Amino acid sequence: MTQFVDVKNMTRWIQQDGVEPIMTAMVEYLEADFARWEAFDKVPRVASHTPFGVIELMPTSDNKEYAFKYVNGHPSNPARGFQTVTAFGMLAEVDNGYPTFLAEMTLLTALRTAATSAMVARRVARPGASVMAMIGAGSQAEFQALAFRALMGIDQLRVYDVDPAAVEKLRRNLEPLGFDILAAGSTPEALLGADIVTTCTADKARATILSSEQVHSGVHINAVGGDCPGKTELDPQLLMRSKVFVEYPEQTRIEGEIQQMAPDFPVTEFWKVLTGAEEGRSSEEQITIFDSVGFAIADFSALRCLRDATAGTDLQAHIDLVADPEDPKDLFSLVNTLKPVG
Amino acid sequence: MTQFVDVKNMTRWIQQDGVEPIMTAMVEYLEADFARWEAFDKVPRVASHTPFGVIELMPTSDNKEYAFKYVNGHPSNPARGFQTVTAFGMLAEVDNGYPTFLAEMTLLTALRTAATSAMVARRVARPGASVMAMIGAGSQAEFQALAFRALMGIDQLRVYDVDPAAVEKLRRNLEPLGFDILAAGSTPEALLGADIVTTCTADKARATILSSEQVHSGVHINAVGGDCPGKTELDPQLLMRSKVFVEYPEQTRIEGEIQQMAPDFPVTEFWKVLTGAEEGRSSEEQITIFDSVGFAIADFSALRCLRDATAGTDLQAHIDLVADPEDPKDLFSLVNTLKPVG
Repeated sequence: MTQFVDVKNMTRWIQQDGVEPIMTAMVEYLEADFARWEAFDKVPRVASHTPFGVIELMPTSDNKEYAFKYVNGHPSNPARGFQTVTAFGMLAEVDNGYPTFLAEMTLLTALRTAATSAMVARRVARPGASVMAMIGAGSQAEFQALAFRALMGIDQLRVYDVDPAAVEKLRRNLEPLGFDILAAGSTPEALLGADIVTTCTADKARATILSSEQVHSGVHINAVGGDCPGKTELDPQLLMRSKVFVEYPEQTRIEGEIQQMAPDFPVTEFWKVLTGAEEGRSSEEQITIFDSVGFAIADFSALRCLRDATAGTDLQAHIDLVADPEDPKDLFSLVNTLKPVG
Repeated sequence: MTQFVDVKNMTRWIQQDGVEPIMTAMVEYLEADFARWEAFDKVPRVASHTPFGVIELMPTSDNKEYAFKYVNGHPSNPARGFQTVTAFGMLAEVDNGYPTFLAEMTLLTALRTAATSAMVARRVARPGASVMAMIGAGSQAEFQALAFRALMGIDQLRVYDVDPAAVEKLRRNLEPLGFDILAAGSTPEALLGADIVTTCTADKARATILSSEQVHSGVHINAVGGDCPGKTELDPQLLMRSKVFVEYPEQTRIEGEIQQMAPDFPVTEFWKVLTGAEEGRSSEEQITIFDSVGFAIADFSALRCLRDATAGTDLQAHIDLVADPEDPKDLFSLVNTLKPVG
């Protein structure tokens, strides 16, 4: 029996439970799974690149459960009325290989990306951070803001986007929820007084959303938008000055900001900060960067969080995905009409 | 809008259209796609191996459409009431990355595996073949038999399985459909007078289902069961004597019978036989082997065949898999309850 959470029920779940309580719960799942990082089967995601964008499959397993996500990334989609990123995914039992849980993951990916960002920032940003600059106000922006408020209490946002309508959308969505929002006229203006800088833009280009001289010491940079080959947001000089935290180096060196750097550019795996094996921030003055690209283990955590939170409720429906003949060696019995020939 | 064919509707489709007409139609899709082999993005499937079995993702794309399949292989499943292989898969638009079609693929994989076998045999077996030996009478057996009858007119089967109940099941399913079936007491007895030998057993072991001395010249061997690392059916000596046809060498050298051979063991890519670039069978006496492991392009063909055959009928249902905000940059609008805080 495969259970299914479709878009409508995902929406209902988020509205019922609330984005911020979900972020708090999801970070617990994320931290529990990141802390047992070595228990997982890990492979860089499998990408199919085309001139229009990329389609990826992201599998992982802890040898009890298996998860994968289908996700696309098409920067030119919004101009044509489509979303840049859509996704769905599932869980399966490793023991027998049967799929157990299918879910829409466009919304779930937005939640887990933001939850992962806040999980990292809570451990490596300077204590007492209260102001976040946001460069890029697209689909991911509200989720980032709510994750940082839920986990770190941040409610002052300084927002810049090349598209002023996107900033207005963010203001419309978040001011009623109690955020203090400044629409900045430029990136430097957004950065004024910010303790944390979130970059989340969608261009598939080697862009420089943040140059090194714009960034003051002590800032934590949550670099979300640079997440596939040929798509970066940060000045290499800025990376040189900073301590860079990553999810899975094998994937981040291909897809993240550090694709611009030498193959031996030093990075810290975040899960090791969580277990205490490595230090997080080394000093007040240090610039820290989370080079977020999104790894399969975070989807594993998010799917389990969603499944557990909706188990036994009408938010889950049954989907008829696995043929189930009475005799497992007699698959043909399902289609046998027993019409003799001739 | 994603369309969905679930197990019930897959079953209805097969019963309405009939296995043999579907096989004939599916081979047309397969040959059309194999003949434009170079147009496809190809990667060996992404496998997650555990002591219990394997879970695999099989993606491919022709740069217009993208397909992937989720499939497991758990040889110990039938003893516990589960099937060895279950699967589902989907098609997506490369242009915008949106999933368009989701389908159960346990039954569809059974159809496409058999259709692929018959497609190859029709091109490389000796003309006039009329008797097929079948070693292994599990879930795949009836589909193989029907594919070979649909494509090559073969209706005499000599069947051996270590489990006599499996042979009885096959007889019960196929005799009413007009097949002439001999239940053999051993593999050599099954092979007597056979023009084609289909091996389809499920042990995850280096088994020798066929030894070299059992096989006479001129026979075509359709080797279906050896399809993952550590799982083979044929005597290496038999491979040495034969001309071996494969789908995608990079994958077959890892998963097929030829995993037993040197990395430069000569093989012929079947798609080149189809386009005329390579010779098929070289002589009447030659033993030919199709080292079938199943490749993503065949799933691509099968999914398109199913989608086209069921388009506009009630065999397809809508599934709510892709979040669709009015403004693609405003994903948050889907969950915004606009409840002001404080």
